[in-house]
Amino acid sequence: MKLVRYGRVGKEKPGLIDEEGKLRDLSGVIGDIGGANLSDKALRKLAKIAPESLPLVRGNPRFGVPVAGVGKFIGIGLNYADHAAEAGLPVPKEPIVFMKAITSLSGPDDDVMLPKGSKKTDWEVELGVVIGTRARHVSEAEAEQYIAGYCVVNDVSEREYQLERGSQWDKGKGCDTFGPVGPWLVTRDEVWDVNDLDLYLELNGKRMQTGSTATMIFKVPQLVSYLSQFMTLEPGDIIATGTPPGVGMARTPKRFLKKGDFLRLGIAGLGEQQQEVIGFQQY
Amino acid sequence: MKLVRYGRVGKEKPGLIDEEGKLRDLSGVIGDIGGANLSDKALRKLAKIAPESLPLVRGNPRFGVPVAGVGKFIGIGLNYADHAAEAGLPVPKEPIVFMKAITSLSGPDDDVMLPKGSKKTDWEVELGVVIGTRARHVSEAEAEQYIAGYCVVNDVSEREYQLERGSQWDKGKGCDTFGPVGPWLVTRDEVWDVNDLDLYLELNGKRMQTGSTATMIFKVPQLVSYLSQFMTLEPGDIIATGTPPGVGMARTPKRFLKKGDFLRLGIAGLGEQQQEVIGFQQY
Repeated sequence: MKLVRYGRVGKEKPGLIDEEGKLRDLSGVIGDIGGANLSDKALRKLAKIAPESLPLVRGNPRFGVPVAGVGKFIGIGLNYADHAAEAGLPVPKEPIVFMKAITSLSGPDDDVMLPKGSKKTDWEVELGVVIGTRARHVSEAEAEQYIAGYCVVNDVSEREYQLERGSQWDKGKGCDTFGPVGPWLVTRDEVWDVNDLDLYLELNGKRMQTGSTATMIFKVPQLVSYLSQFMTLEPGDIIATGTPPGVGMARTPKRFLKKGDFLRLGIAGLGEQQQEVIGFQQY
Repeated sequence: MKLVRYGRVGKEKPGLIDEEGKLRDLSGVIGDIGGANLSDKALRKLAKIAPESLPLVRGNPRFGVPVAGVGKFIGIGLNYADHAAEAGLPVPKEPIVFMKAITSLSGPDDDVMLPKGSKKTDWEVELGVVIGTRARHVSEAEAEQYIAGYCVVNDVSEREYQLERGSQWDKGKGCDTFGPVGPWLVTRDEVWDVNDLDLYLELNGKRMQTGSTATMIFKVPQLVSYLSQFMTLEPGDIIATGTPPGVGMARTPKRFLKKGDFLRLGIAGLGEQQQEVIGFQQY
């Protein structure tokens, strides 16, 4: 299934995308898409519903984050061998873990807002993993069964805040609008091989990132197992699993986001995001 | 007011501590203590209730985190001049920001569980700041009005995970039970001078940490203002503002937590926490 949440910010309704790509309303069936509906059992129940029995949604509503009530938004750093190489950094011995503030979450096509005075805001297309079942100390072999599904994440990052203003990255990772997620939460049964998904990102129509989850250093089951040794993963938690090469700070010359820039990014089978970059607004 | 949440894990009810130190039930007045009830307006309304009109709670129930639905649990590193000195680290030029997983939150007297195989779990008594009103780009001068109140936090930290397994601290800061908060959320009108509060921590009856918020490098209004430049602070967010000297890793010889250890920590006017340290349990 391709699950979505659609509608105005804070008023999103649950829906699904049918085989013809049409948006169907799930609000008569479940209250929302969130931790409580992401277990295998709950998803199996949803999957039994014939999509054509659900009301069609007219128009082109906005999409929100496809999971409500995200508790943790966890990031993995330098997790692509080719990205570590372009950043001139050694391949990490074990996953680098940081946290994105949940207030950074935004819809897949919502504007990305440059922080006040920001000069080094950068893009990062990433595979997002959505936890479906509480996971504590799970093994790599069993990790997959704790995953509800996958999604596209743009792990937007302000490099000055991340790297030049103290040792800890979270400051540059959690700004408002720095976490577009979606459009869809694609349940794991629909993802043929999570270790072989193409990722891409375009800036103003020009390809910037081209990668494949095949070059991930720590694969998805390894990441889920690893994280679950340090903290309990709860249904609805999202893990952004690292970015392939082509980010702005690694280019020659460096290229950071400016007002009016337009991002298009996606992952094979998981849909596409589009964001306009806007200047800072006090809101 | 001294606001509390009491009862079994996940079933906490709102309450308050009256002038005689007795626990009164607030559940007839508000559903819970959380972001929705922490604005100045909401707190003023609560303060109008005569505590003696509220039912007395019998027995000695467990206390939970005094705020429900915490969205962000933000930590500030090396924020005491005397602690930076003992750690042999330079005084930071600006606040070091990290994030504690919200799954690390626990009641003030709940057990602290050593992670599996942990050899370097350490204590940190800290002043917690609870946000009451959404704060974005607020100035230092106006920061205080965005604060609902203060509480005691034990920023429990696994030093190997934090410092020896990659550059990012979050891995060692967010383990389950690593965030005891409470017992009370003391509204800011009851805290005479937040820049002059004594903090202490005892291990097995022996004083380990003795400090005062007077030696904080970045003061509370500065921290709230600073953080609000990087991310929107939401009502119910908790900021752990750093620890004074005396942590286990800075002692000679180093002293880390062991099963059976007993912690007692507190801040003048904000109450006291007591935790037993237990071994790892798969639960």
